[in-house]
Amino acid sequence: MLSKRQDTINGFQALLEKMSHYQEALALIAWDLRTGAPKKGVERRAKVIGTLSGELFSMQTSDEMAGYLDALQEADSQTPLDKVLRRSVEKARKEFDKYRKIPKDMYREYVELQSIAESVWEEAKPAADFKKFEPYLEKIVRFNIEFAELWGYEENRYDALLDQYEPGVPVSKIDGVFAQLRENIVRLLEAVQASPHQPDTSFIGQTFPVEGQRAIGRYILEEMGYDFDAGRLDVTVHPFAISLNPGDVRVTTKYDTRDFRTALFGTIHEGGHALYEQNISKDLLGTPLCTGTSMGIHESQSLFWENFIGRSYAFWSHYYDKLVEQFPEQLKSVDLDAFYRGINVVKPSLIRIEADELTYALHIMVRYEIEKGLINEEIRVSDLPEIWNDKMQEYLGVVPSHDGEGVLQDVHWSGGSFGYFPSYALGYIYAAQFLHKLGKDLPDYERSVAEGDLSPVKAWLAEHIHRHGAMYDPRDLLRRVTGEDLDARHLVAYLEQKYRDVYRIPNEDSEG
Amino acid sequence: MLSKRQDTINGFQALLEKMSHYQEALALIAWDLRTGAPKKGVERRAKVIGTLSGELFSMQTSDEMAGYLDALQEADSQTPLDKVLRRSVEKARKEFDKYRKIPKDMYREYVELQSIAESVWEEAKPAADFKKFEPYLEKIVRFNIEFAELWGYEENRYDALLDQYEPGVPVSKIDGVFAQLRENIVRLLEAVQASPHQPDTSFIGQTFPVEGQRAIGRYILEEMGYDFDAGRLDVTVHPFAISLNPGDVRVTTKYDTRDFRTALFGTIHEGGHALYEQNISKDLLGTPLCTGTSMGIHESQSLFWENFIGRSYAFWSHYYDKLVEQFPEQLKSVDLDAFYRGINVVKPSLIRIEADELTYALHIMVRYEIEKGLINEEIRVSDLPEIWNDKMQEYLGVVPSHDGEGVLQDVHWSGGSFGYFPSYALGYIYAAQFLHKLGKDLPDYERSVAEGDLSPVKAWLAEHIHRHGAMYDPRDLLRRVTGEDLDARHLVAYLEQKYRDVYRIPNEDSEG
Repeated sequence: MLSKRQDTINGFQALLEKMSHYQEALALIAWDLRTGAPKKGVERRAKVIGTLSGELFSMQTSDEMAGYLDALQEADSQTPLDKVLRRSVEKARKEFDKYRKIPKDMYREYVELQSIAESVWEEAKPAADFKKFEPYLEKIVRFNIEFAELWGYEENRYDALLDQYEPGVPVSKIDGVFAQLRENIVRLLEAVQASPHQPDTSFIGQTFPVEGQRAIGRYILEEMGYDFDAGRLDVTVHPFAISLNPGDVRVTTKYDTRDFRTALFGTIHEGGHALYEQNISKDLLGTPLCTGTSMGIHESQSLFWENFIGRSYAFWSHYYDKLVEQFPEQLKSVDLDAFYRGINVVKPSLIRIEADELTYALHIMVRYEIEKGLINEEIRVSDLPEIWNDKMQEYLGVVPSHDGEGVLQDVHWSGGSFGYFPSYALGYIYAAQFLHKLGKDLPDYERSVAEGDLSPVKAWLAEHIHRHGAMYDPRDLLRRVTGEDLDARHLVAYLEQKYRDVYRIPNEDSEG
Repeated sequence: MLSKRQDTINGFQALLEKMSHYQEALALIAWDLRTGAPKKGVERRAKVIGTLSGELFSMQTSDEMAGYLDALQEADSQTPLDKVLRRSVEKARKEFDKYRKIPKDMYREYVELQSIAESVWEEAKPAADFKKFEPYLEKIVRFNIEFAELWGYEENRYDALLDQYEPGVPVSKIDGVFAQLRENIVRLLEAVQASPHQPDTSFIGQTFPVEGQRAIGRYILEEMGYDFDAGRLDVTVHPFAISLNPGDVRVTTKYDTRDFRTALFGTIHEGGHALYEQNISKDLLGTPLCTGTSMGIHESQSLFWENFIGRSYAFWSHYYDKLVEQFPEQLKSVDLDAFYRGINVVKPSLIRIEADELTYALHIMVRYEIEKGLINEEIRVSDLPEIWNDKMQEYLGVVPSHDGEGVLQDVHWSGGSFGYFPSYALGYIYAAQFLHKLGKDLPDYERSVAEGDLSPVKAWLAEHIHRHGAMYDPRDLLRRVTGEDLDARHLVAYLEQKYRDVYRIPNEDSEG
């Protein structure tokens, strides 16, 4: 009996291991396609992706998998499985149920559509030609609606899609925290815009040569504890981080000589994602748990580093000298205080990835509302440019002059990632909750940062979040780490404190 | 009946197509491992390779494949198949027979051994530590002996291994052409060494900055007709070319600021390989014919470009000005004649990849003799360092001071590529046969080259060799193109003419 149990466990683990090999090959192809793969080879590469993801899909939804899942759930009810194994069964069961509901041909067709749609989008965006992209987006939305119907949901059809990226965080929860956040951001934004103490940002418009940007970017990644023996840094049009395995987690950046912030904060951001993946416990190798637990928790790690560390006064009180070393001419007349205020300037903008820390979440809310409408068939794809522009006016007070800087700006929809955007703002909310707890656990952390020692922060995140991989769903992890459920108040308090400081806005209490 | 025939054809083609997708994924992994993949991810990557090549192996040797091969051979005997399909069946049958004879576990173990042995070799070589590498090499030789026995052979066990790289070219044939070649090279080498007109090579030892080398390398690749939209150029320790598909054929090079020849001729060499793969007919996509037909024919293309074009007087009479533009200081006092003679200097050396055009084949013969001895169990692995050094003395008159510049210098054995080396010299012989025929077809080709128009040469090679992919075995292709079988006399005549010119050696006839 015990031997049969062990056989089942071994067989299940071997299947998961094999699946992880396919995932790794697909991750490498994805990385390669974005880091200089020649364009004439791409059409055939799409077929390779189709074949490998088709095989992976077959394994995830195989009768063999079904047999293991049934047997192991039965075995668990008799003698509990160890916790990694039990959670692996739980995750594999979820994927199984999800994909088993999608016919294989439909899935394959969708994977090929994604890859073609992404290249169509790449041409449509610079041409600001929404009409070119529209028929592909129509198909992608249609697929996603069908997926949601196949998967099922309790309250809102969009919940079925959200659950892919943020398990256990439905529309009913998001609506609440987003409303709370929006109200406070808008209030703060008004105060910021009304402040007579606007930061001087003229130093940002100077030319910062690529070589110096590359040097400081690599240096800060090393300081953060990013392991270059377990990763590499490349240049791409759209920066990203990707894990092939915990020993190979790659980041990319892009250099803009007219705006050093792009590479500097982009590199720290992607580095934050990479630290998560590099520090997942080796115990989870070859299981579905060897990855970040949700897109939102992932984003919490990148935003933590980018904003709470990389845009903090403490950080620059040590590292600003290093930056000045690289760019002595450009920064000689900019003191630390001016630099800190300059990089934290608030300016409602058209482009999400260029948004400042304060208004970023408003960009996400625009997309969230649109996705919710599309998936619930309350909005039509053909009306998107107009709806987009209206919502930008409503939320941020700015309107795109063409669709390239409007509805076409993001890659996500071309890849079919409906339900993904909310994770960016949720990540920000999680991150502030983690920061609050870290501040309690390590009251001196800001002093360490100000002394150029980032290791306590890195170690705390690795210990409390990274090493667990996907062991816990996001809200479970949040409760485990902070004792609290999802709640925007820590983020509101953080933003309040920071922007009153940067913009020298008197505290309401002291005014009253 | 016809419908069943078509079903079989469709099924066979779908299986081949799927196999080509696995090959493409494996090729990308191979490229990535050599172009900067982080070392901590390599151990797991080896498992991914194991899984994907295991799957490929399963398909190549499946009962499904057996069924198609039997049915299509039967169908062909009734109504002939079209020639691409028939040749695909022939190649797939050969692979099937070859791999079906190897037990699956044995093959998997071998693939993993290869990848570990390569990394052991990478450490052993700089440490000149043959003992470290020896046990791995022992195992690899033992595997190859077992493979040869499983595959079978007519005259010589080594033939079974040679056949992998140079089908239809056995020891009995190679012994003859190598003997003919060796005799003539040694005779010519003596005359060269005795010549009072030694080229001045002092200009080579100057510093040539990487930037200029990169620019001239890319420029020449473009001039050769290498399509950068269907490939990319990277930097690696050991340069290579690799085809993912004909729209994605990548080359690498390395820059040595103290010897510009490394990158210059290395890039042209790899470019020659790449042109072959980029110009394979689209009709062969997704079949086993969408590749070079043999390692020797492949090498004939790289050597053709490197030596017959890239080291020719005609080539430099146009391109030397371009090189001088990049390096005006270094080359200002070196005229075309001195440059041409300098880059064609002959100097017996220890390192194969640094060997000149005349002595290169002697390096190959040393390896050929050793491999023949190892596989026939006439030589022991533990004796290799001594045997290597003895043979170097005998063939080239030079002896390594340590194994790092001796028996450990090449990567090939660590990857198990026994039977591969002879292809380098065979390629040189084929190339001279092609050159002879090209000279007849295009009597003015040297004038075109001298005018900076390489397109007639490129087009001739594409038309006669490249587009056919693996449609014809090497000696069949040779006969098709030149009307002759393998024969070293064109190479001997070429070397004779060139080195008498470079070293100003009077013609024997005119002396007599």
